[in-house]
Amino acid sequence: MKYFVHQNALCETDAVGDGTRVWAFAHILPKAKIGKDCNVCDHVFIENDVVVGDRVTIKCGVQLWDGVRVANDVFIGPNATFTNDHFPRSKKYPAKFLGTTICNSASIGANATILPGLTIGESSMVGAGAVVTRSVPPFAIVVGNPAKIIGYVDSPQVLRKDGGNVRAESEGIIHTNVRGVTLHTLRVVPDMRGSLSVGEFDRDIPFKPLRYFLVFDVPTRETRGEHAHRRCHQFLIAIRGSVSVVADDGRKRQEVTLDKPNFGIHLPPLTWGIQYRYSSDAVLLVFASEYYDASDYIRSYSEFLTVVN
Amino acid sequence: MKYFVHQNALCETDAVGDGTRVWAFAHILPKAKIGKDCNVCDHVFIENDVVVGDRVTIKCGVQLWDGVRVANDVFIGPNATFTNDHFPRSKKYPAKFLGTTICNSASIGANATILPGLTIGESSMVGAGAVVTRSVPPFAIVVGNPAKIIGYVDSPQVLRKDGGNVRAESEGIIHTNVRGVTLHTLRVVPDMRGSLSVGEFDRDIPFKPLRYFLVFDVPTRETRGEHAHRRCHQFLIAIRGSVSVVADDGRKRQEVTLDKPNFGIHLPPLTWGIQYRYSSDAVLLVFASEYYDASDYIRSYSEFLTVVN
Amino acid sequence: MKYFVHQNALCETDAVGDGTRVWAFAHILPKAKIGKDCNVCDHVFIENDVVVGDRVTIKCGVQLWDGVRVANDVFIGPNATFTNDHFPRSKKYPAKFLGTTICNSASIGANATILPGLTIGESSMVGAGAVVTRSVPPFAIVVGNPAKIIGYVDSPQVLRKDGGNVRAESEGIIHTNVRGVTLHTLRVVPDMRGSLSVGEFDRDIPFKPLRYFLVFDVPTRETRGEHAHRRCHQFLIAIRGSVSVVADDGRKRQEVTLDKPNFGIHLPPLTWGIQYRYSSDAVLLVFASEYYDASDYIRSYSEFLTVVN
Amino acid sequence: MKYFVHQNALCETDAVGDGTRVWAFAHILPKAKIGKDCNVCDHVFIENDVVVGDRVTIKCGVQLWDGVRVANDVFIGPNATFTNDHFPRSKKYPAKFLGTTICNSASIGANATILPGLTIGESSMVGAGAVVTRSVPPFAIVVGNPAKIIGYVDSPQVLRKDGGNVRAESEGIIHTNVRGVTLHTLRVVPDMRGSLSVGEFDRDIPFKPLRYFLVFDVPTRETRGEHAHRRCHQFLIAIRGSVSVVADDGRKRQEVTLDKPNFGIHLPPLTWGIQYRYSSDAVLLVFASEYYDASDYIRSYSEFLTVVN
Amino acid sequence: MKYFVHQNALCETDAVGDGTRVWAFAHILPKAKIGKDCNVCDHVFIENDVVVGDRVTIKCGVQLWDGVRVANDVFIGPNATFTNDHFPRSKKYPAKFLGTTICNSASIGANATILPGLTIGESSMVGAGAVVTRSVPPFAIVVGNPAKIIGYVDSPQVLRKDGGNVRAESEGIIHTNVRGVTLHTLRVVPDMRGSLSVGEFDRDIPFKPLRYFLVFDVPTRETRGEHAHRRCHQFLIAIRGSVSVVADDGRKRQEVTLDKPNFGIHLPPLTWGIQYRYSSDAVLLVFASEYYDASDYIRSYSEFLTVVN
Amino acid sequence: MKYFVHQNALCETDAVGDGTRVWAFAHILPKAKIGKDCNVCDHVFIENDVVVGDRVTIKCGVQLWDGVRVANDVFIGPNATFTNDHFPRSKKYPAKFLGTTICNSASIGANATILPGLTIGESSMVGAGAVVTRSVPPFAIVVGNPAKIIGYVDSPQVLRKDGGNVRAESEGIIHTNVRGVTLHTLRVVPDMRGSLSVGEFDRDIPFKPLRYFLVFDVPTRETRGEHAHRRCHQFLIAIRGSVSVVADDGRKRQEVTLDKPNFGIHLPPLTWGIQYRYSSDAVLLVFASEYYDASDYIRSYSEFLTVVN
Repeated sequence: MKYFVHQNALCETDAVGDGTRVWAFAHILPKAKIGKDCNVCDHVFIENDVVVGDRVTIKCGVQLWDGVRVANDVFIGPNATFTNDHFPRSKKYPAKFLGTTICNSASIGANATILPGLTIGESSMVGAGAVVTRSVPPFAIVVGNPAKIIGYVDSPQVLRKDGGNVRAESEGIIHTNVRGVTLHTLRVVPDMRGSLSVGEFDRDIPFKPLRYFLVFDVPTRETRGEHAHRRCHQFLIAIRGSVSVVADDGRKRQEVTLDKPNFGIHLPPLTWGIQYRYSSDAVLLVFASEYYDASDYIRSYSEFLTVVN
Repeated sequence: MKYFVHQNALCETDAVGDGTRVWAFAHILPKAKIGKDCNVCDHVFIENDVVVGDRVTIKCGVQLWDGVRVANDVFIGPNATFTNDHFPRSKKYPAKFLGTTICNSASIGANATILPGLTIGESSMVGAGAVVTRSVPPFAIVVGNPAKIIGYVDSPQVLRKDGGNVRAESEGIIHTNVRGVTLHTLRVVPDMRGSLSVGEFDRDIPFKPLRYFLVFDVPTRETRGEHAHRRCHQFLIAIRGSVSVVADDGRKRQEVTLDKPNFGIHLPPLTWGIQYRYSSDAVLLVFASEYYDASDYIRSYSEFLTVVN
Repeated sequence: MKYFVHQNALCETDAVGDGTRVWAFAHILPKAKIGKDCNVCDHVFIENDVVVGDRVTIKCGVQLWDGVRVANDVFIGPNATFTNDHFPRSKKYPAKFLGTTICNSASIGANATILPGLTIGESSMVGAGAVVTRSVPPFAIVVGNPAKIIGYVDSPQVLRKDGGNVRAESEGIIHTNVRGVTLHTLRVVPDMRGSLSVGEFDRDIPFKPLRYFLVFDVPTRETRGEHAHRRCHQFLIAIRGSVSVVADDGRKRQEVTLDKPNFGIHLPPLTWGIQYRYSSDAVLLVFASEYYDASDYIRSYSEFLTVVN
Repeated sequence: MKYFVHQNALCETDAVGDGTRVWAFAHILPKAKIGKDCNVCDHVFIENDVVVGDRVTIKCGVQLWDGVRVANDVFIGPNATFTNDHFPRSKKYPAKFLGTTICNSASIGANATILPGLTIGESSMVGAGAVVTRSVPPFAIVVGNPAKIIGYVDSPQVLRKDGGNVRAESEGIIHTNVRGVTLHTLRVVPDMRGSLSVGEFDRDIPFKPLRYFLVFDVPTRETRGEHAHRRCHQFLIAIRGSVSVVADDGRKRQEVTLDKPNFGIHLPPLTWGIQYRYSSDAVLLVFASEYYDASDYIRSYSEFLTVVN
Repeated sequence: MKYFVHQNALCETDAVGDGTRVWAFAHILPKAKIGKDCNVCDHVFIENDVVVGDRVTIKCGVQLWDGVRVANDVFIGPNATFTNDHFPRSKKYPAKFLGTTICNSASIGANATILPGLTIGESSMVGAGAVVTRSVPPFAIVVGNPAKIIGYVDSPQVLRKDGGNVRAESEGIIHTNVRGVTLHTLRVVPDMRGSLSVGEFDRDIPFKPLRYFLVFDVPTRETRGEHAHRRCHQFLIAIRGSVSVVADDGRKRQEVTLDKPNFGIHLPPLTWGIQYRYSSDAVLLVFASEYYDASDYIRSYSEFLTVVN
Repeated sequence: MKYFVHQNALCETDAVGDGTRVWAFAHILPKAKIGKDCNVCDHVFIENDVVVGDRVTIKCGVQLWDGVRVANDVFIGPNATFTNDHFPRSKKYPAKFLGTTICNSASIGANATILPGLTIGESSMVGAGAVVTRSVPPFAIVVGNPAKIIGYVDSPQVLRKDGGNVRAESEGIIHTNVRGVTLHTLRVVPDMRGSLSVGEFDRDIPFKPLRYFLVFDVPTRETRGEHAHRRCHQFLIAIRGSVSVVADDGRKRQEVTLDKPNFGIHLPPLTWGIQYRYSSDAVLLVFASEYYDASDYIRSYSEFLTVVN
């Protein structure tokens, strides 16, 4: 016997692979089959009609009922709970218990609940506290009650080549191919009290503002504003909804969709800017480096071209 | 002594009914009362001021605190968790612990949480992972966090005599009293990735289509369309929202509300059909057995009556 | 001549049916054709390429342009207005004017507007003031701008519905009874392209900011934040939704609901501020006069009272 | 005198340009100024303090009040109505009437109402029946009560280079750079009774279907499905909401957003298809050329690459 | 004769007050009565059964039909349009034309449309382009299509006295085939200030209540309540949303959907009532003839059958 | 050794404070540190790198993993579950486990799940069954999956001095300073089947009604109604939405916002009442002590003043 059973454990089966450890107050019934290099923690209970693969971790407080099949490299978090009857009644047994299949490398989070008859797909990740009511596809990450897919373990990046339309993903600054125009992803601090997005002037935002303005209640998607400034810097953020911004230095042009409260665009002076495709709930926040001065505006694109060239 | 206590269990009470079994690592305090033919599984803990009826199943990892009263034939799933204090603080005890009453034949799903002071009604069913914050009425089925009623155990069919208005419940075909007109409930496959409704032509749908059309953005409920076809079969499904359809063979008439993406109506040729009462979000999908042919339409009801009689 | 022309009318056509009356200041061009028993009221104008059926009533102030065809028994209410060009430009004429066809027994309500190229179906009823942008089916009753079907001539009940309007409060500053705390109503410029709210720093906003932050996605109304600053000024605006702010100088306290994108509150240093009762869609914009500095925060109300007294 | 005044008109001014015509029952007061080549139709009334430019058309039933300024090439539709007092009371006159300025080449639709003090911008187009409550920007098209911008007269196409993301605009078929994959914009027939989208199989849709399915209630945007077929053609339409589809032939890849009930994508056999970014209300309709056959599915991308290469 | 008639006008009545002026192309029929100091502008038309007060301004393009009564100091804007028939058909006349009453000092904006039978209250202001479908209260300002109140002219301290325009569903009582159970459609009085539904106890409601209760926030459609009373009458109304009620006398059963604030059901004693299918926004108002008494409730259907048989 | 270890427990550490008790089947690893007067219940498991303060209660079925720090006076409910790895995979360990910090006097409800790396703030309260995904602020009460703040343990009442605007909080009657006007907070019974608000006439409501009415679909916030009664008592409740009521006895005036279905105002005879600021969804329920009698209404405020003085 090359596996370990704690003196306070009760391991009634012999079908245990090498290197497996069974800890205190765990109880395994006689017909269960446990693979190699497993870890069966304190207060675990395993019934007879159970097959566990190799390198499986079963944390404290878990029970594996008749009909559970666990493949290799699976992690089962503490107090995760399985079921094998959709409509349990005391002393009334279904013709056949509904089994649960946990595929290779899947992980089941702490205190998750798995409804009967489901398959937990390969490498999937069930979040802590999730109540899983439908089978989980391979590689899916699921959370909540009932559990829903919130992503995939190996989200491929091939999907991210969005042509000319740049989208913010992680903090930092992106230089566009339009002279001086930069895209800024600002800090976000999520918290039980809500989310907080912060920008410091002359640090995150490349200037100190003398003015801000808000654009909202834009009646239709077709509504459009456009102009350039001679001296004024602008920094635009779509605090709600989305707005498309075209930046143009007279030679190159780039379109950006602002759609997050922590994603902004810096338009330096002598950049022709167009804002349009406002979503119905859009609120655009603009910081400007100068007070309002009508003579600073260039409102005709042909005049703009003359000035920059 | 006619009850069984596993050698690794700790049963400090004598008040245990015949036929009851207490399994490994369970612990029952001296003043608890347990009925007949119960099953107290591994790692269960039962305090003193607890009364358990007959034929009760208590799965692994459950604790019954002072104040819990369990009637007969109750099922308590693994890791289901009880409470007896709304606002627990360490070392501070309420004047009186709030009891929990579980009525006859109720079932509490795996890993459910029961807030203090509640009654779990007769024959009710608490779903796995539910967090129960209000008393559960008899026969109710509750799920979610917080738990909500999603149905009743013994949903009576007396409620289903809806006069002329037929509603789809389970898969299959219903013949109406209008000649050739059938109602089809198609397969739905719910899945973590969404729901899928499927129809195969010449199998589920009684013909192969040469054309489909979609009706949407119907501005008002009063808007109405009506006509018959000479040769064309139609199959109508309200993919979103609801639409009322009247089918009329010249002698009999039936009104059906289409309101599910898997519930369709087959209108064979020479059936007068009226569509109206579109909900604001309605999308009606129609399969037609023929290409468009203006001469196939009968647009006047009096002409229709002449043709069918 | 068996028809009547008022002495102040100008009827240049002979093609007028028996029993028709043409009233004062009406003007009919030479090639128009008017049926029997019609009533052409004061100030009506009828062009050449117009055919009017029998028993038609044309109330005052109506013009019938080239291309209008009016069948029998039609009623055209006063000041009802027709068109024959989708995109009229002065002195630019389409290849062909778009005609309007009004079918038998239709009625067009007072002051209704009929877009070009449409058919107004038999016995239909266009409501007073309606702007008709699509052809009207037979027997339909249409009202509104744009006109929508609200019923059919031969079905019983009919009702109406629609949207709202926005109002700006008066600009300015209100002093509260809390030391240094002021309420600011900022400029709003409503415009066909949306609304614009503007604030200038050191002018409308009583300081120049070194930092801004946005608070959003606050999960529940009960969520609360509170603290004071030693040196930092803050200016708060609820850009979306509403937030309640309590300002407290250690002796007096005032609660203000921020609920407009142009309404802000200035909290000077050593003001205890509480933000709570966030609506689910609230976005709070805060300008701060200083960069982030943990030592500037007073997070305990008792410490705050010590500092201010 | 080189202008024409109808014998039934009353033209009290001499300031009328050459080529202008004044028609029956029109009335122009003595101090009005009218430009060249204008057309003043029947029942028009023009006050004294009015200046009208050249080549202006004023259709029947229009009044131009003191304070109206009309530039050149303007079109004013029949019964279009101007105002010059926000709060008119009988016999109470404002200190100054609010003027209306209509810029060059603007058009005002039939029966439109123009509130006082507004400017109607150059080349703008006010829709028939509109009630204009705010100034209209140059080139804007406005309709409704109150009038809102629905587009611009000369919408430039420079904004339409959306990179890899193709959007449907007008009927027809677009070939993508993925082998055999085509985008289909199907017919839509808008009507007062709602909109109708139609597709004929073997004509608009490139095959006859043996099966359809609907995907709906997709719980989260992150949810994703992907596979290829060996023999089955598929045609996908997002009937409600939006879905992103990636089509991949093993060498090239294209992403398309389906977001209209009349915009579909044809995926021929041996195309790897990914569906994701379902909006919460999305309903995806899929036509398949074959009955369901598990062996027709290729579910692994690596196997797909082997098969196609 | 101390009033002025333009030489191009046609004034057939002598009943014109001193100081009144009638302008070019206006036409007044012989029996009309016009007060003092009025201004009747170009292209106005006034029928016979019309009475106009003193100091009234009637701008160009207006017609006053038989039945219009205009009090003193009224302003009627250009092209404002009146009506006197809800359902005009050519050559078909109502038994009596619906009059319009315009009270002292009211103003009607340019191009507004006034539906028949309405009263335009004292000093009220109808906005330009408004389509007025309900009587306008004194001092109210109304705009839009249909017109809605957006404010009051000068914070008046007197409101009310509306007369006319009361619209209701078909009021009355329906007997069901369940013993003693009746359906009641109560009065509704729609008004520019909102809708009012009224019930009088012992008259409309068949008893005097000692108790009422409201049921709301019902979490799911599946939630169900049912019981009978021994002595207590109940009257149920769904004030918001909808609720299905099944009434059962032990032999017959009827299902009714309550979905209007003026539609109620009376359940006499010894009627088994089931409430279910609450819409998510449903609020059920119940009047009960007795105070709460637990012994009055029959909660088991089998007991109910025993009691009634 | 002054602490207690049950004979069936396994306590491998010596670092246990005086007065602490360790119960059956609990297991504590050798390097754990446990404070004084703690209670470690049955089936608890504590790893090595764990520090527990004084007077801590750890209920059955809990595990404390390496990295957990528990301060003094903490309560951890039964089956509450901790984690220390965001992305657990069997046999793959993070560079460092994420610790959990539970501050003084915090309580963690039964069966709650705590994600890794969080701080549970001082005196906070995590509800039973909660899944905590973000750190919990001091004193916050959090529930749900994911957990959200629903209140604070020590909600201060200083926020409740709302000037003239009274808000209902707990059951009972408030006397206003207007003669005879009282505010009534009625019973609410929340239940799994929805919420129930109950009022008994002549008990909770100070009279027996002869009439009720409902006001709804009030079109705009500016709409206002006002009058007094000579003999009729009224009792008003906003069943949905909110309505502001001003009560005035001729000398004093108070404004109250009705915004809950269990909060009403009693207006005795000779009280001038104004209702306004209806929210768009408002439904106002009014009980009246008399049948409708036009002579009972005082509609002019000046007449009202004469009557009451």
